[in-house]
This record gives sequence, structure tokens and C-alpha cells, in this order.
Amino acid sequence: MLKVAFLGGGSFGTALSIMLAKKGTSVNIWDRKLSVINDINIKRENIKYLPNIAVPSGITAFIDIEEVINDTDIIVLSVPSHVIRNICKMITPYLKPNQIIVSIAKGIEEGSLKRISEVIEEEIQDNPIVILSGPSHAEEVALDIPTTVVVTSKQMEYAMIVQDVFMTNKFRVYTNEDIIGVEIGGAVKNIIALAAGISDGIGYGDNAKAALMTRGMNEIIRIGTRLGGRIETFYGLTGMGDLIVTCTSMHSRNRKAGILIGKGVLVEKACNDIGMVVEGIKAIRAFYELKEKEKVSMPITDVLYKVLFEGKDPKYGVYELMSRDKKSEF
Amino acid sequence: MLKVAFLGGGSFGTALSIMLAKKGTSVNIWDRKLSVINDINIKRENIKYLPNIAVPSGITAFIDIEEVINDTDIIVLSVPSHVIRNICKMITPYLKPNQIIVSIAKGIEEGSLKRISEVIEEEIQDNPIVILSGPSHAEEVALDIPTTVVVTSKQMEYAMIVQDVFMTNKFRVYTNEDIIGVEIGGAVKNIIALAAGISDGIGYGDNAKAALMTRGMNEIIRIGTRLGGRIETFYGLTGMGDLIVTCTSMHSRNRKAGILIGKGVLVEKACNDIGMVVEGIKAIRAFYELKEKEKVSMPITDVLYKVLFEGKDPKYGVYELMSRDKKSEF
Repeated sequence: MLKVAFLGGGSFGTALSIMLAKKGTSVNIWDRKLSVINDINIKRENIKYLPNIAVPSGITAFIDIEEVINDTDIIVLSVPSHVIRNICKMITPYLKPNQIIVSIAKGIEEGSLKRISEVIEEEIQDNPIVILSGPSHAEEVALDIPTTVVVTSKQMEYAMIVQDVFMTNKFRVYTNEDIIGVEIGGAVKNIIALAAGISDGIGYGDNAKAALMTRGMNEIIRIGTRLGGRIETFYGLTGMGDLIVTCTSMHSRNRKAGILIGKGVLVEKACNDIGMVVEGIKAIRAFYELKEKEKVSMPITDVLYKVLFEGKDPKYGVYELMSRDKKSEF
Repeated sequence: MLKVAFLGGGSFGTALSIMLAKKGTSVNIWDRKLSVINDINIKRENIKYLPNIAVPSGITAFIDIEEVINDTDIIVLSVPSHVIRNICKMITPYLKPNQIIVSIAKGIEEGSLKRISEVIEEEIQDNPIVILSGPSHAEEVALDIPTTVVVTSKQMEYAMIVQDVFMTNKFRVYTNEDIIGVEIGGAVKNIIALAAGISDGIGYGDNAKAALMTRGMNEIIRIGTRLGGRIETFYGLTGMGDLIVTCTSMHSRNRKAGILIGKGVLVEKACNDIGMVVEGIKAIRAFYELKEKEKVSMPITDVLYKVLFEGKDPKYGVYELMSRDKKSEF
């Protein structure tokens, strides 16, 4: 039985840990917050990030990052996307070859505009890198509610190892070789979820949100195929599937932040109220730059950039998206 | 200003009537139930099908079908799909050339397996036929909450007339020439919405439903392209857009029926409880036949057929869809 370390005791990392521990896998969790470590080790509950769910005995939390990855076969980077590079730098001195690095973050790096796997690759040259993505709210994974996800890698043999380690009756793991498509779909859908949340916050209904999500899907495909992703991937679990779950579920932080912004709450306050990282807001800056560079039309990203960073009224912004002076669907 | 008749005082027909009347259009509604006519004409509210929304003065309801279409330019067939043929037979003797027939029903005919526009064409040879479809819950349309729909026809010049008549600031009407794609997407999405409802009714979560909808989209595309529809249409408002709204909104009768079935309520009782026609249930029989004839794989339709008509346990059926022994996403 392989041993797994999670770097970051957030909600999804904790949910996956619980799922693996129930399966009999030995799991280590690292977190920089002593309170999270104590809650996991002593109270057997991650009170801040995944409350009301028992942490099984197969899970041990550590404050020392060298200790936590020691003797593990799989190292899951369960931190927000902007922390990935630093975490890689922290573990590089202690890595052994063949330890598989798995990322579950969704985003692209501001500034470099690189995908997560590219960031990891720059910092960690000798270890295999696997990306896990798909419609998978932590709250449901931890409760064994059926979930399906996708793993991808430049070296698919390692993706298949991760598939075997994570697969259960209720958590189905599929492989997909299109690493670009998987990563880009997961990053852009957070922008669309923010827009969907804003639409909900303004008080628009299900008809408007469905239209917005449909246009959002086209936006994902335009930038995603331009960057080298495959169209089928965008219409699969990590694209359309994750878009749907993020835009419609009350578990989604991106949607929740959007709802607050749609109600007129300032962006910074909205993020504070959520209390966790809102990946979509970081993604907007990155994709705004990327679409300019690649000369791809991304009207939803454009409008959100103006709403979030240039003070445009969200109501007017979303209305503009709805009422463009277009007469034919395509 | 053109004059419009609605044949059928159901929720969507009434909502569109209210929208047109607010725009200043003169609207007639026909219904076979005297109670509906009296409610509209006297109480100025369609109490049974669209409660709590005022019917403006520009709308008059009639019990006589000859009178209702007399002097109108556009005749909207706002009845469930299985009633379309009969309604056409009823009005044929009174039609004048150039009266445009619009259908807002979503389904295919049991037995003949024909699309709605084909059924109308068989009964009415000399009048232009236009289909209006898209993510448009009546409850929101009637309240002026932003909505986008699509019109299509074999004679697009008539679709454009309908576009102009129905277009408002809040109700955006696009054209799409792919009549097959628009009609098939609208019919199959009701099946997927039933499945999504069953998943909700069983107690599965947002992750599972997003996965089911993603697979459902592929099912729509497989049968839809086989029948001659265009893939872009299925990824547009009348396919993906309508799928999303029908699977996630509490306004959806198909989803509501699915939730009841997922909770163990018998199919007939579920339909009675909804109190309106559940198009998805009729669509399952028709598409089950159609997929056999066309030799197209439709696993969700298969499972629902067994659940609805062969007594299969819904829980086991949906679980089967989730846990197929497949390892690669494509």
C-alpha cells in the first residue's frame, strides 16, 4: 500500500486524506498553521476547513515539511495555485526520485502565465508530475457522495498509479492525456463561476445564468484550444463538468464571492468574508493578460476585469453580456 | 404591430403572452379549460399555471379556436408535444396563408418518432413554421428576468419576423438555421433532467449531478448529430444552455418528477403530483426506440427506460451510470 503526503490542510486536501484513510492508506498532512495540525491530530476534525467531519486514525498531521514527505510515495500539493511555487522550493531539498508529485490546484500563475504543472516542472526537475481535476467539492468527497475526477500527466504511467491509489467505489478516477486541456479548463471555469455568482447576486435567474454558462463554455474553448488543449477535454468532466458544479453549487467559493460582489460588496471584503482563497479572482488577472497576448476574445473575462479592478458596476457589466447587439446565435 | 394567438394557456404560453402584451402587442389565448379562460379574462391571473403574476389588459382568452386565430399574424402552439398534431388538425380549416405557426413544445412524437416541426408540416402544408427554444423558465420570463432564446425555421425569413416580434430588452432572441439541432437538443435534455432529478432525489450531490450532465451532453450530441443536427447547436443555448437550466432549476418539472422518482415515488404518482405534463417521460420512450433504430449508444436513456418502465431501482440505476468499469475519460 503506497503512502501519501498532503502539503496543505485545506478542505479538498483534507477530504481526499479522509477518503484515502478510510481505504486503509497511510496519510500525512502538512500545514503551516499549528491550529490546523492540532485540530487534526487531537480533535480529529479539521474545524476551520472541513468542519463536522471526523478525521480517521490513519491520518497524522505535521508542522515539519521534511518529516511529512519522508517515506511517502505520493506527495499531493493541496495548496492554492499561487503558493505552489513556494511549496515546491520548500520540498526540493528533501525529495527522492520517484516520489510522485500530484497537484489539485486550479489556476495559472500571475506574471509568468504558466500552468501549474509548468510551475512545478520548473522547480522540480526529476520527479513525475500528475494533475488531478474535475467536479469534486470537498464537502461531498469527504462524505462518500459519488464523485468523478480525471488524472493527467506528461508521463501517463504515473497518472495511472495515482488513479489506482485514489480510485474507490464512490470516487471514480479517469485518465486523460490532455494535460493542457485539463489545466486550462479548471482555471477558466473559476472566472465563469464568479460571473455566474454575480448574476445570482444581482437577482438574475436561472435562465440568465444558463446563458452565461453556455457563453462561458465557449470562452473556455476559445482560449483553451488556442493554448493547445483538446476540445473534447473542455466538454468533459474537467471542463463542462467542473464548470457546472462551480457555477451551481452553494459549496463553491468562487460562486459565493460572485454573489457578494453582485450584491454590491467590495471585492476585498467579499474575499475576506469567504475566508478561503478565491481562485477565480487571481485567474481573471492572469487570463486578462493571456487573452491580450494570444489575441483571443474573452468577453466575460473582460467584463469581470472591469468590475473587479476598474470599478465597473456589476449589474451593468452582466447586463452588457446579456444584451450584446447580436442577432444570430453563431 | 403584428397580432399573436397562443393556443394553450400553460405556463410558458402565458408568460410569453404577458411579455408581448407589456410590449404593446395584442394577444389572444385559447384554452380548452373554461376555468383558465375565466381566470385570465376576469381574475386577470392564470391561477393554475402561472399564479401570482398579473395578466395585462392586452390579453384576451377565448374558448373558440376559430375566433382566437382570426385576424392574427402569428399562431403559437403552446401545448405539450403530444397534443401538437391534434391542435394542428383543429386549426387547419381556419388558417390563412402567411399566418406563421410557432411551436414552443420540446419533444418528439411517440410512434412516428418525428420532430415537432415535421409533425406540424404533415398537418399544415401551406404555412411557415418556426421553432422557439432555449433556457427559458416561464416563471422568470413573466417577471422580466433576463432570458435568451433561439428561433429556427426551414424558412429563416419567418424566423426573423418572429425574432422581431418577441425581442425585448430582457428577452433576447437569436436565430440559428439548424432546426434539427434545436429540436433534438430541446427534446433530449428533458431525459437528462429527469436523470439529474433522480440523482438529487436519491441524495447524491452536486459532483455526481455535474458528471451526469456532462455525460448527458455527450448523449445529446451522439443522437443529435446522427439525426443531422450540428454540434455547435448542441453546445449552444438550446442544447447545453437548456440542459443546465432544466437540470439545476427548481422551476423544472422534469427535474421535480425525477426527484420524486429518486425518493421512491411511483412514476404515475410523481406525474400526478407535478400536475403538468412531464415531457421527459414521453421523450424516454421515443428516444429509446430511436436509439435502437439508429444504433446509437444512450446509456442514460437506457437506464431511465429500465427505471421507469421495467421497475429497476433508481438508486441502482444511477449508481450503475456512475461506476461503469471505464478507466479513460474518452
